[in-house]
Amino acid sequence: MTIVKPSTLPGFLELLPGDQILFNEMIDTIRKNYEAHGFLPIDTPVIEKSEVLLAKGGGETEKQIYRFQKGDTDMSLRFDLTVPLARYTAEHFNELAFPFKRYQIGKVYRGEKAQKGRFREFYQCDIDTIGNGSLSILNDAEIPVIIYHTFKDLGFDKFIVKINNRKILNGFYRSLEITDTVSVLRTVDKLDKIGRDNVIKELIEIGVAEDKAEKIMAFTAIGGTNEEILAALKAFGITDSTFEEGLDELKTVVDAIAAYGVPDTHYTIDLKIARGLDYYTGTVYETELVGYESIGSVCSGGRYEDLASFYTDKKLPGVGISIGLSRLYYQLSQAKLIEAKKKSLVDVLVIPMDGLELEGIKIIQQLTQAGVAATLYAEQAKMNKKFKFADKLEVPYTLVVGETEVAQGIFGLKHMQDGTQEDMTIEAIIAKLKK
Amino acid sequence: MTIVKPSTLPGFLELLPGDQILFNEMIDTIRKNYEAHGFLPIDTPVIEKSEVLLAKGGGETEKQIYRFQKGDTDMSLRFDLTVPLARYTAEHFNELAFPFKRYQIGKVYRGEKAQKGRFREFYQCDIDTIGNGSLSILNDAEIPVIIYHTFKDLGFDKFIVKINNRKILNGFYRSLEITDTVSVLRTVDKLDKIGRDNVIKELIEIGVAEDKAEKIMAFTAIGGTNEEILAALKAFGITDSTFEEGLDELKTVVDAIAAYGVPDTHYTIDLKIARGLDYYTGTVYETELVGYESIGSVCSGGRYEDLASFYTDKKLPGVGISIGLSRLYYQLSQAKLIEAKKKSLVDVLVIPMDGLELEGIKIIQQLTQAGVAATLYAEQAKMNKKFKFADKLEVPYTLVVGETEVAQGIFGLKHMQDGTQEDMTIEAIIAKLKK
Repeated sequence: MTIVKPSTLPGFLELLPGDQILFNEMIDTIRKNYEAHGFLPIDTPVIEKSEVLLAKGGGETEKQIYRFQKGDTDMSLRFDLTVPLARYTAEHFNELAFPFKRYQIGKVYRGEKAQKGRFREFYQCDIDTIGNGSLSILNDAEIPVIIYHTFKDLGFDKFIVKINNRKILNGFYRSLEITDTVSVLRTVDKLDKIGRDNVIKELIEIGVAEDKAEKIMAFTAIGGTNEEILAALKAFGITDSTFEEGLDELKTVVDAIAAYGVPDTHYTIDLKIARGLDYYTGTVYETELVGYESIGSVCSGGRYEDLASFYTDKKLPGVGISIGLSRLYYQLSQAKLIEAKKKSLVDVLVIPMDGLELEGIKIIQQLTQAGVAATLYAEQAKMNKKFKFADKLEVPYTLVVGETEVAQGIFGLKHMQDGTQEDMTIEAIIAKLKK
Repeated sequence: MTIVKPSTLPGFLELLPGDQILFNEMIDTIRKNYEAHGFLPIDTPVIEKSEVLLAKGGGETEKQIYRFQKGDTDMSLRFDLTVPLARYTAEHFNELAFPFKRYQIGKVYRGEKAQKGRFREFYQCDIDTIGNGSLSILNDAEIPVIIYHTFKDLGFDKFIVKINNRKILNGFYRSLEITDTVSVLRTVDKLDKIGRDNVIKELIEIGVAEDKAEKIMAFTAIGGTNEEILAALKAFGITDSTFEEGLDELKTVVDAIAAYGVPDTHYTIDLKIARGLDYYTGTVYETELVGYESIGSVCSGGRYEDLASFYTDKKLPGVGISIGLSRLYYQLSQAKLIEAKKKSLVDVLVIPMDGLELEGIKIIQQLTQAGVAATLYAEQAKMNKKFKFADKLEVPYTLVVGETEVAQGIFGLKHMQDGTQEDMTIEAIIAKLKK
């Protein structure tokens, strides 16, 4: 028979079981937090009609989409969970309660150039709150609260959610009568990389007057505590309605986050945060792991004006955030910030001597019925082969079933990591291992 | 702006949040049971190289596959979880401990003709135990045990796992010197539909001698308790080594299932079960919901000789079973055997009077910190609109935050289903609702 080399496509993450256990635990933690805050699950198809998925059309993303024909149907794999959310919300509008809080955790597909840490299939873990017609700014405060609890539960101590409001940026630039905000923001974004002087130089090159470039830099340099930043913005002397609206919103969001009990060590106003320039219209978020800023934002999002204008006349403003879990997992592993801790999901591997398998099964029945997860090594083999398996599986405990053990009702429970063994009754083993 | 009608492709199941909660609970139950028996998670890519996925080639399935090009790459969506398991086991062979017990719960894709209850994207929930070179027959007993506990936990009382062994069938037909077993089995399979006499007629038509056809019918008619069937098979007087091997295996499996503590009301030998004629080689399973036999088998599988012969020279015998969850969910819903019980994942919706939102947030903080899931209705609106939202969400409790309530520290906790209200402190509410 011809052997085909077993391999996956480049850019597709696949984990060994021990790593998969860890990955699944991360998903469970994210899901638990999303649900605890009232977000409801949805699970849209991976394949959508191309005309629906690409209703917005154009852009870099389109080239990356996996699109194909089957029969007469033109279909595409989803490239994010936001477009499907828009389609879902418009399609099921009458059956949903608004504000509609939904989460979705699922795989999305982008035929990007293969490179380290970039995946063509990756998990996104999204939450969004969608309003019908309008949506209170307080919803923008809930998002960082959930992210705070999620990252805490994921085991992180030092991280910070950075918050800004696009209206402040837009209002500020409008007050300077700068129309090509996109180019200006892109230039300002390079501040950390090329430094203040080069940014000013580039700003002048794209047509910004020098005094305005200085003002932009002064604006960008505003820092300090959240209170200090809000005071500095107020004192900056800009009279622009959008700016003032943004400032109000930002203050409301920051105050509400405090009311939600998030310590101020874990969220901060950062006027440099802008995010996807044409999509977000108000609050924007990024999240950094302190000490690992080079990873980039591990969780980003913001407020948008209208979710589903391609699918409905209804105005559906929303606010949301997304954790790109596959990339995050990969980077955390590379940085040795996470590590698979267990390779086995059971507590006990029951190893019967050859011929005593049914006795082993009866013990498993007692253990599992009492809530101790256990499984049988059922193969006939030499004892050292059986223990080699236990070692490779990294099961916490083994229990050997021999004739003497069965006759006496006393079994050796071996702790595999330190090699110690205790001779115990099944009842005592259950008492010891039951959670 | 042009509006594109928001819709999904035919044959793709998409649920409203309340139904999705139920669906997810079913997945959780299945996963919990698979894990409790030592099965390890894997999560293979949805897209595989076509040459890998189609290594086996041919067959009905190939036409149904979603296959496409992206750049130079010929890729396909997985149509089951078995072929990816074969590829995975061969690819990661050296890193796995054998017997390798894995579960996978994920979506698979088949471009079938769209019809009621048939899906083009559907969840499969698979467990398989893979041996290296050989695999004890006792592993075949563990599978129905897991299915028993899973379906019990899913809330079913009356179901039965039907068990057979292909070696008994093969040995029996060999002893009759029947070579075209496939055609014979296909004919015998019609017994329930066309009746005994017509089956005999058809058997004779395809060349089976009349006395042999009668013997086939006598064999097929063997019934009774497991012990009675095993005795009848022994007494049938067939001297064929394969038959005897199958009989031994079946007896071992049935005895081991009993040792695992499964009541004999929930598993039975059924000599009519054959399953995918060319794939399974030993034990085979089907599962029926008693009273809903028309749904067909809700969970099927069996023993196979060699999992990954297309990817490796290593012989990897295995045994496994699969729950086709999307189809099962759909059929159970249609039969009204399951129903979404809750539409909300939080216990309390906090409804602040306009202007008291921050007070509402502080209450949410107290509740959630104490482990009571709660969320805020943050929109400014008339009270009846706020309660309409609570009704549509089907949240168990609401808590109104007004000035009097805040001043006195006493809040009305309204039970939405029966309309009763208790005035309580936050501490008392926590004590009442904390799980």
